[in-house]
Amino acid sequence: MLKIGIAGLGTVGKGVVKILQNNAELLTQRTNEQIQITAVSARDKSRDRGITLDSSINWYEDAVELANDNDVDVVVEVIGGDSGVAYDLCKAALSNGKHVVTANKALIAKHGTELAKIAEKSGVALAFEAAVAGGIPIIKGLKEGLAGNKISRVAGIMNGTCNYILTTMRDAGRTFDDVLKEAQKLGYAEADPTFDVDGIDTAHKLVILTSIAFGTPVNFDKVTAEGIREITIDDIRYAADLGYAIKLLGICEETKDGISQNVYPAMVPLSNPIAGVDGVNNAVQVHGDAVGSAMFEGPGAGEGPTASAVVADIADIAAKRFSHPFGIATSAQKKAKFLAPETRHGAYYVRLQVKDESGVLASITKAFEKSDISLEAIIQKPHQHDDKVTIVAVTHDVLEKTFDKAMERITSLPHVVGKPFTIRVEG
Amino acid sequence: MLKIGIAGLGTVGKGVVKILQNNAELLTQRTNEQIQITAVSARDKSRDRGITLDSSINWYEDAVELANDNDVDVVVEVIGGDSGVAYDLCKAALSNGKHVVTANKALIAKHGTELAKIAEKSGVALAFEAAVAGGIPIIKGLKEGLAGNKISRVAGIMNGTCNYILTTMRDAGRTFDDVLKEAQKLGYAEADPTFDVDGIDTAHKLVILTSIAFGTPVNFDKVTAEGIREITIDDIRYAADLGYAIKLLGICEETKDGISQNVYPAMVPLSNPIAGVDGVNNAVQVHGDAVGSAMFEGPGAGEGPTASAVVADIADIAAKRFSHPFGIATSAQKKAKFLAPETRHGAYYVRLQVKDESGVLASITKAFEKSDISLEAIIQKPHQHDDKVTIVAVTHDVLEKTFDKAMERITSLPHVVGKPFTIRVEG
Repeated sequence: MLKIGIAGLGTVGKGVVKILQNNAELLTQRTNEQIQITAVSARDKSRDRGITLDSSINWYEDAVELANDNDVDVVVEVIGGDSGVAYDLCKAALSNGKHVVTANKALIAKHGTELAKIAEKSGVALAFEAAVAGGIPIIKGLKEGLAGNKISRVAGIMNGTCNYILTTMRDAGRTFDDVLKEAQKLGYAEADPTFDVDGIDTAHKLVILTSIAFGTPVNFDKVTAEGIREITIDDIRYAADLGYAIKLLGICEETKDGISQNVYPAMVPLSNPIAGVDGVNNAVQVHGDAVGSAMFEGPGAGEGPTASAVVADIADIAAKRFSHPFGIATSAQKKAKFLAPETRHGAYYVRLQVKDESGVLASITKAFEKSDISLEAIIQKPHQHDDKVTIVAVTHDVLEKTFDKAMERITSLPHVVGKPFTIRVEG
Repeated sequence: MLKIGIAGLGTVGKGVVKILQNNAELLTQRTNEQIQITAVSARDKSRDRGITLDSSINWYEDAVELANDNDVDVVVEVIGGDSGVAYDLCKAALSNGKHVVTANKALIAKHGTELAKIAEKSGVALAFEAAVAGGIPIIKGLKEGLAGNKISRVAGIMNGTCNYILTTMRDAGRTFDDVLKEAQKLGYAEADPTFDVDGIDTAHKLVILTSIAFGTPVNFDKVTAEGIREITIDDIRYAADLGYAIKLLGICEETKDGISQNVYPAMVPLSNPIAGVDGVNNAVQVHGDAVGSAMFEGPGAGEGPTASAVVADIADIAAKRFSHPFGIATSAQKKAKFLAPETRHGAYYVRLQVKDESGVLASITKAFEKSDISLEAIIQKPHQHDDKVTIVAVTHDVLEKTFDKAMERITSLPHVVGKPFTIRVEG
């Protein structure tokens, strides 16, 4: 029998309890093991949570005590937070030889390597499928399903809130602020939306995937994050006209020069399956030398999907299926050389406001030429603000450093108003 | 060290050799085990295959001899065929306590349960990730990644040839025969395309997924297969006008009444991610009680992708990660009650040719009404053949039996020419 202690009875914790209870027989068939909840930690035992727990289980007010319960083999940490109780509990549990399953992306993004080392020392599992892209088994897919591949790139929509906002802006023609407010009302976005809309949540998930994909220690200090606050309905429309969708992507890549891991809104060609991933759904695309490109799509959050991923980790432990937390032993991980964002080589979308004067389009085109940047498209949009006109351009591939310089040159042109807004184009 | 014997050095076999050689270090890091090719079986040792094999490895003309080589722990069967050498080899290898990894969908579809029983008796693995949807880790996803879920439905595009044909018919406005010929020239379709275009290949893959999804013995006698030969460009265009894509789907479902497993071309709403899966790509959508709906997409065939899946199975064995061949022990499998196709409850697309006479549309509408079938859409198309007019209708949900009766009634109407052509609509 595998004995489970659950720390946290919020949305995910309750979901885990429900699956372990409702699908108990199935899980035993699939793992050859009985899985039993023997302990729980949450405040206010008397509160009605809509779940029924056996009266014989141990109940702790202090989650860290789960780490010392001899009747617990696996600690399921679904409290959240990158420090404090969650961190203390996981560390103590692993040190005490208990397996840890967690849905906590912030914790793993910041302390993943340290915790993996403790797990290795104790010979136990540290599993966090639920930390990235909710119900989608992307960590298993990457570590095991694509184990034969040298991975070169992972790119994904890993924040359902942002994807919901961008999709709704497009479909309903509404502004960012307007849709954000609605998302908050619907419970898709937090009261403080910073983590989601500024790309931090995606960055947490991305650095975990970077580590697994390339065999390097997880490194949250070396990720850049740009969010979606500045995306306008016009950008989304221009993108569609040009054959692109705008998606907030987390992207990690390894080339002979090093590793990059960046989060930013990107123009994705409509021919790329990830461009069609809408609403609160997540999707992660993996490029490997043998498989080519594979994509995993599904719900990235919510009680059922997140609990599904937690229980998959528990099932692996029950069936004694072991893989390293980050795919290889921490001792085998190589030190990553992280590339600065300005080394990116790719295409760019630019939206400019210019004074409505004759010869403006030619002058902008010439400025790109002078910077040695060739254009795939440049369009003067009839849509006007006062006496201003919008110009939209898409470049061919260029070094980001070169592109930035061109933007400086263009910004300083007399008929250009304000700062150009740019979005990276991603194949 | 894990010693590998490869039976067959065709496309997939060569791909496996390349991965095991090129990514050897990575695989050792990921599995804690050295993986070595110690034996091979293929005809004509002297032939240049573009791969270099160590001269010390054992070479067999007769693949079945691999089963008796003491220097082989895992037999990789990539010969193909549902009987003969492939069957004899797998049976003998499993009986002799060797793990078997195979890409052979026909073999597993027909003899999977028998082979799984031998594997269980010998305590070895029987793994066939490559048999379904090529490089996509759908079997691992279903057995392990979604282990917490009670699965209710699996639906997928599992034949790249058909998907390529349907996509090209749509994009280039060309006929089935025309595109098939091109696909044969490009090597996407076999000289005898029956297995692909008549849905048999998809049926092989589907029955494997049915078994894993619902915990029943694999049963190739209880699958229906309809292919795509009768789909016209007009159907694809009408579908697009109505908001659908036409895809050849394998679908298995479990309801309280029983299990259905059917292969047929289906109209898929464009809002469903599977409608956007184009070209030779495969995709499998899984519905589970916890996760909701998750989709796995990627290349369904070819050297690299198929070999990627074979090597993932080898990696699992190297890392001692075990799961039952079909998700649960064969002794725990329940006898399936298979539902007859006419018990399907769903919507239908109908294309009719009628004589160009006044009142025809009203008469057809009335015939549906009389059969208690309500219509979502009915369109009289201006596109004409001689003195005939095409009418296209989409029904609301109805029992297939009721729908079939309505079709009989409509076929017998005096102004209806020939047999109506119907396509099922799938959510």
